[in-house]
Amino acid sequence: MQVFEAVETLLAIRSYEEKSIPPETVTRILQAARLTASSKNRQDWDFVVVQRKESLQRLGELARTGSYIRDAALAIAVVVPNHPIGPVDGARAIQDMMLVAWEEGIGSNWVSNVNTAEVKAFLAIPEDRTLLAIIPFGYPTRDVGAGIKDRKPLSEIAHAEKYGQPYGD
Amino acid sequence: MQVFEAVETLLAIRSYEEKSIPPETVTRILQAARLTASSKNRQDWDFVVVQRKESLQRLGELARTGSYIRDAALAIAVVVPNHPIGPVDGARAIQDMMLVAWEEGIGSNWVSNVNTAEVKAFLAIPEDRTLLAIIPFGYPTRDVGAGIKDRKPLSEIAHAEKYGQPYGD
Repeated sequence: MQVFEAVETLLAIRSYEEKSIPPETVTRILQAARLTASSKNRQDWDFVVVQRKESLQRLGELARTGSYIRDAALAIAVVVPNHPIGPVDGARAIQDMMLVAWEEGIGSNWVSNVNTAEVKAFLAIPEDRTLLAIIPFGYPTRDVGAGIKDRKPLSEIAHAEKYGQPYGD
Repeated sequence: MQVFEAVETLLAIRSYEEKSIPPETVTRILQAARLTASSKNRQDWDFVVVQRKESLQRLGELARTGSYIRDAALAIAVVVPNHPIGPVDGARAIQDMMLVAWEEGIGSNWVSNVNTAEVKAFLAIPEDRTLLAIIPFGYPTRDVGAGIKDRKPLSEIAHAEKYGQPYGD
């Protein structure tokens, strides 16, 4: 899959087939994170790879907005330091993981609001680290189609030379 | 270019050929940002597209760590709201722009520490918005090679099921 096509079609997927992800594909997704650039090349991030059925089930219970984690074949918890650059670097790695998974036919979504004492304890994440997000992965249950998205037109978000001068493409 | 290849080879490029980027390619890079997912689909981001030679020069002077903006064919200033999710959403859009540009043979880099009164005034960015980064783009002056990167091994950053249990791929 070409890069632009992946960016264009990538959708948030919350419903997964009961089908496991090959180990080499899991590694490929992790390699995408590992190879991502970070501020000053700090690489101050950790990825907790959850594949046990009962653990996915439990994370689905604990994540307020991510009950569908229970149906995923894989969830990757992304851990960053507790300072502003941490989440920014983590977001770059997550984007790369989601795109590389998508190329393999695997859907995912970003589950936020998981940096709670309960979830951190369950994953044994140190208190002084931040759980930025949990990303569940799995093969989509439905045909994902052409990636039709609800987005603002370019003229609303792109400016020419100065803020406030609409960019005309 | 395939997605994994783009992630694997993407390098920070700070040295650009004196060659302009076709308008349709500039638009393609902006479309990558536009199509990116954001928290709750807020799309609360703005992209200031700078292509005037004298403006790029001035941004290079104003950006403490990004003097090389002066040599870029294009710079995109990414503006987000002043709350924690803003930079995270912005980072996702930036990652997509950098990957899509890379597919077109265009290098870029992330210039941070630009959210100063001077830079914001120059780009007419409202006071209550945050300038997350300026991303200069251009055709690389050197052969970018195979993307050899200085990265930690996977075993140092990936954990199996619980934090602290190294993931063996």
